[in-house]
Amino acid sequence: MITRTLGYLIAAILIPGMALAQASAPDINPYVFTTLLFLVGGFLVFWMAAGFAMLEAGFVRSKNVSMQLTKNVSLFGIAAIMYWLIGFNLMYPGDAWTIPGWLGILISPTVLEPVGLASADASLDYASVGSDFFFQLMFCATTASIVSGTLAERIKLWPFLFFVVVLTGLIYPIEASWQWGGGWLSEAGFSDFAGSTLVHAVGGFAALAGAIVLGPRLGKYKNGKVNPMPASNLPLATLGTLILWLGWFGFNGGSQLAAGTVGDITDVSRIFANTNMAAAAGAVTALILTQIVYGKVDLTMVLNGALAGLVSITAEPLAPSLFGALWIGAIGGLIVVVIVPLLDKVGIDDVVGAIPVHLVAGIWGTIIVPVYNSDAAFGTQALGILAIGAFTFLASLLVWLVLKLTLGIRVSEEAEITGLDISELGIEAYPEFSKS
Amino acid sequence: MITRTLGYLIAAILIPGMALAQASAPDINPYVFTTLLFLVGGFLVFWMAAGFAMLEAGFVRSKNVSMQLTKNVSLFGIAAIMYWLIGFNLMYPGDAWTIPGWLGILISPTVLEPVGLASADASLDYASVGSDFFFQLMFCATTASIVSGTLAERIKLWPFLFFVVVLTGLIYPIEASWQWGGGWLSEAGFSDFAGSTLVHAVGGFAALAGAIVLGPRLGKYKNGKVNPMPASNLPLATLGTLILWLGWFGFNGGSQLAAGTVGDITDVSRIFANTNMAAAAGAVTALILTQIVYGKVDLTMVLNGALAGLVSITAEPLAPSLFGALWIGAIGGLIVVVIVPLLDKVGIDDVVGAIPVHLVAGIWGTIIVPVYNSDAAFGTQALGILAIGAFTFLASLLVWLVLKLTLGIRVSEEAEITGLDISELGIEAYPEFSKS
Amino acid sequence: MITRTLGYLIAAILIPGMALAQASAPDINPYVFTTLLFLVGGFLVFWMAAGFAMLEAGFVRSKNVSMQLTKNVSLFGIAAIMYWLIGFNLMYPGDAWTIPGWLGILISPTVLEPVGLASADASLDYASVGSDFFFQLMFCATTASIVSGTLAERIKLWPFLFFVVVLTGLIYPIEASWQWGGGWLSEAGFSDFAGSTLVHAVGGFAALAGAIVLGPRLGKYKNGKVNPMPASNLPLATLGTLILWLGWFGFNGGSQLAAGTVGDITDVSRIFANTNMAAAAGAVTALILTQIVYGKVDLTMVLNGALAGLVSITAEPLAPSLFGALWIGAIGGLIVVVIVPLLDKVGIDDVVGAIPVHLVAGIWGTIIVPVYNSDAAFGTQALGILAIGAFTFLASLLVWLVLKLTLGIRVSEEAEITGLDISELGIEAYPEFSKS
Repeated sequence: MITRTLGYLIAAILIPGMALAQASAPDINPYVFTTLLFLVGGFLVFWMAAGFAMLEAGFVRSKNVSMQLTKNVSLFGIAAIMYWLIGFNLMYPGDAWTIPGWLGILISPTVLEPVGLASADASLDYASVGSDFFFQLMFCATTASIVSGTLAERIKLWPFLFFVVVLTGLIYPIEASWQWGGGWLSEAGFSDFAGSTLVHAVGGFAALAGAIVLGPRLGKYKNGKVNPMPASNLPLATLGTLILWLGWFGFNGGSQLAAGTVGDITDVSRIFANTNMAAAAGAVTALILTQIVYGKVDLTMVLNGALAGLVSITAEPLAPSLFGALWIGAIGGLIVVVIVPLLDKVGIDDVVGAIPVHLVAGIWGTIIVPVYNSDAAFGTQALGILAIGAFTFLASLLVWLVLKLTLGIRVSEEAEITGLDISELGIEAYPEFSKS
Repeated sequence: MITRTLGYLIAAILIPGMALAQASAPDINPYVFTTLLFLVGGFLVFWMAAGFAMLEAGFVRSKNVSMQLTKNVSLFGIAAIMYWLIGFNLMYPGDAWTIPGWLGILISPTVLEPVGLASADASLDYASVGSDFFFQLMFCATTASIVSGTLAERIKLWPFLFFVVVLTGLIYPIEASWQWGGGWLSEAGFSDFAGSTLVHAVGGFAALAGAIVLGPRLGKYKNGKVNPMPASNLPLATLGTLILWLGWFGFNGGSQLAAGTVGDITDVSRIFANTNMAAAAGAVTALILTQIVYGKVDLTMVLNGALAGLVSITAEPLAPSLFGALWIGAIGGLIVVVIVPLLDKVGIDDVVGAIPVHLVAGIWGTIIVPVYNSDAAFGTQALGILAIGAFTFLASLLVWLVLKLTLGIRVSEEAEITGLDISELGIEAYPEFSKS
Repeated sequence: MITRTLGYLIAAILIPGMALAQASAPDINPYVFTTLLFLVGGFLVFWMAAGFAMLEAGFVRSKNVSMQLTKNVSLFGIAAIMYWLIGFNLMYPGDAWTIPGWLGILISPTVLEPVGLASADASLDYASVGSDFFFQLMFCATTASIVSGTLAERIKLWPFLFFVVVLTGLIYPIEASWQWGGGWLSEAGFSDFAGSTLVHAVGGFAALAGAIVLGPRLGKYKNGKVNPMPASNLPLATLGTLILWLGWFGFNGGSQLAAGTVGDITDVSRIFANTNMAAAAGAVTALILTQIVYGKVDLTMVLNGALAGLVSITAEPLAPSLFGALWIGAIGGLIVVVIVPLLDKVGIDDVVGAIPVHLVAGIWGTIIVPVYNSDAAFGTQALGILAIGAFTFLASLLVWLVLKLTLGIRVSEEAEITGLDISELGIEAYPEFSKS
């Protein structure tokens, strides 16, 4: 045995390859593990596109389902193209605001290799650039998905898609670069681990601007009364929620951005457990609260409670204990129960509840970060939310107004009453199921 | 070259970090691989929650779909909280039945770190505690999911959820600790790799006790005749089945509990292949048998046949050859075709077929283990099934009876006829699709 | 510190295990990583079975939905059994066309171990045989899934399943062995990375042969006019498309067949990014084209556009830049918009559009490979398509004709008008939703 070991050591000295292979082993594996994290995390976040599509198709009335599906699939396609065309290099600009070489991406034959990317990415030696691009792209697409739900049942297809072009090509990459691209907010000490503000509140602010410009659905608010327009397919909405819950493990877990050491993979594990706990707490809180407040459980609030729990923990899914994830997520569920009727009171018609879930719970999750993360401060968190919120809301408002004044963003009254499926697309989602 | 190698060796002596990095490399990677297995396995088993929700929403009549969805989302949320609050530490109690420190989990700020857990878990040095907690939690939730299907269309929401509290906080963790927590059954030599008995039969026993206490749906059995109550949405039921099939790769594969060596990952691969084969064999068996017995194929039996195949292979997915997985799974399919009508004969109303699938096939899978696994014995297998079955059935019966005598567990006749969606929740699953 | 290091080195000399563990580290990890790639890739491709089931259930009329679900679940079960019984060993026959030992698989108790497999597989030392079997099986099943969509709404269940037996047990393994089994096409220099031709066009050719023998649905073509038969459930069709999109990351990414080095995992990352881009480009192209050509967007074309983009990039998902993936996928989308009406003109009734998506886009993706991959040549690509196409089409035609002349493959006119669910299975998919 000792002979064998000595023989090995001698071999290691005489055969350089063996010693070098050994030497490089600790370097290779973290690269592979982290790349795997991006790929698995990325496909999970991709899956959230299906979650939004099902959630929204379930929440709208059956006469608008085809349109909602069309918007969701199309916005993802557009996001994928715009984020490649502009977004990725705009978001990771290397030196602050100089964006060297980003147009080069268009003509480079090796677009996924470091040489074809902006200088900042050329130093990406801890994981494959392609995997990082794949992962980050999904966050950009998520932001756009949030918008489509709020504006459902009355917005025209093409103006909505033009907004998606601007959101995924410019608005999202610019504000995200402030933090994740090494910009001024990250230097100021702002903390938003996986995007409670950068992704979710941004989607929510863009949706809010759109909802204000677009106005509520016909008949939604009449003589100060709210006219409920029930979800047409609750199994789809539930499926969508559970898809989003699943995808969120990739969303938050992948945002650790590393998986090749004991410390990193342990952190990813904590994030998975906390993310799940926050969702559970949000759902159970809405379950109990709707029973108390309304005398009966409201499934749509339970679903949105789970989602609000997820959004709430997204800004800091690592530092809290499981108990921390529980109360942070529970307040997310509370937010849904409180804000949904409040929005109706002020006449903002948010078809799927995206504003309470993504905007309000996103702000909540961001502001609470310093409780568990001592590197963050309440003032800086507020500054970040305000800066990103103001920029996103105003930029979105501008785009929506321009679209309204040029193409028009709202379908005709007749089309809205008929339903967008027949009037705009000429295709029904459920042509054989007669309407009661 | 030799100079380079010698230089490296000298550097290794002079620079401690480098040598240590190397030294720890063989230890780091198994830890990361096994943690990854728990995380990927865990999110796949999480996904089974969506599978149960869709399966059950598809199998019940449309007037009870919202309620079934509400139960499924809520029970998962409750399981996540109860398993953290009590279950995990009760199940892995360290020294047999002393459960040091489990209440400490509530107040510990670092609940996912070894120091915050019971002493037995503090030695978990082969993978992240958080990933193990995440993975094990999903099994606890699965147990509760099984119950909801059997009792559908007539049980009240809150009493059902109270039962889930007891099942996920006490019943499941206690019986699972007997085997997976290093308890007396594991010392006796009982063998249940991924939980044919510990998860599936336990869910089935709890469901059986509930079905007996609750009684059948109104009009299901009249004058000795079985009145069929057809599934309202077969695409949902099929989707649910395929989700469960997918999730089962995580359920069985993750139960290898290790992935960092050639032997372990090869075992995980065998488990994946066997799991798939058993499901296929169960489905094809039900396909052929229903054609022969009824003269036409019964899709609901094909779906349940696949699930019964999966349950059957769960007690021992590693040792059998693919041919072994085939016949073990095939008999699972046979069980469905035989037991479903038998249950109706004895007047036990199991809405989705969870008792044949999870209880009977679970017993079958457990009892057959010794055929391929020489470490197991038929007597010990029977002992384990009897002990776990008696404990679970009696404990569940007690809880159901207490709930019946206090809160009442069954909705009124009127509510049942109207449907639980309108009577209990005031929200229809498909408000626009008129009923024929 | 130095003492600690020296102590470690001394320990390494005295404790053989430690030194050996270190020595084997560089070999172990690629094996585990590649096996993981097969397992994760495999479960993603498994998930495509659900994608096809939902896509097809959504595209057929509601009176044929149960039948379509039954076919999809059953064909997967049959594929899993046939590929084990014959396919896998027929496809990887060791020395070209001698197939030593493949019957041995039936009786071997260790079917997943190298010793139980054909000689060629015994050398599979870079990953677990079980994981490779699991992964390859899913490709075989995918081929069969493609066929079921085209022939929907009029084919009998059992003749269809007999065809699946032959397709998955013989036709697919034989043609796939020509390339992936080291056969004559691979020696000729044919290039088909993940199966644009070997899987997708083959499924398409088999479907085309079936559609010709079977004829169109009653009333589809009348007096030279095409009678549209609208999809019954577009959310299901959209869900199916997004499931397929997700599964395709495993389909193409896993086909790298290695993940344990920086080069391999980086390649897998490029494949993920390119696969996503091609799908996005296909969807957006169909979005824009249907707006231009028909004056309104056609959701079913957008969905099929995404799928055609995916099929197009499958023959070479690695070499192209993202811009390459974009235009290759975009032409996939164009193919859908052009070919769907063309097929109707020649009277070939393809219910879900599988022929444009899988056959035509599959040929397109294969023929274009040499543009980015200098190891491929247009002539050889054409040769491969022709050889595989001729073999598959003629073999399929023969089987369909034999089935037609013996069992009959088409349901009666009455059964077709009533719908296959009631006439053949006696079970409706949506029994409570009245038909308009």
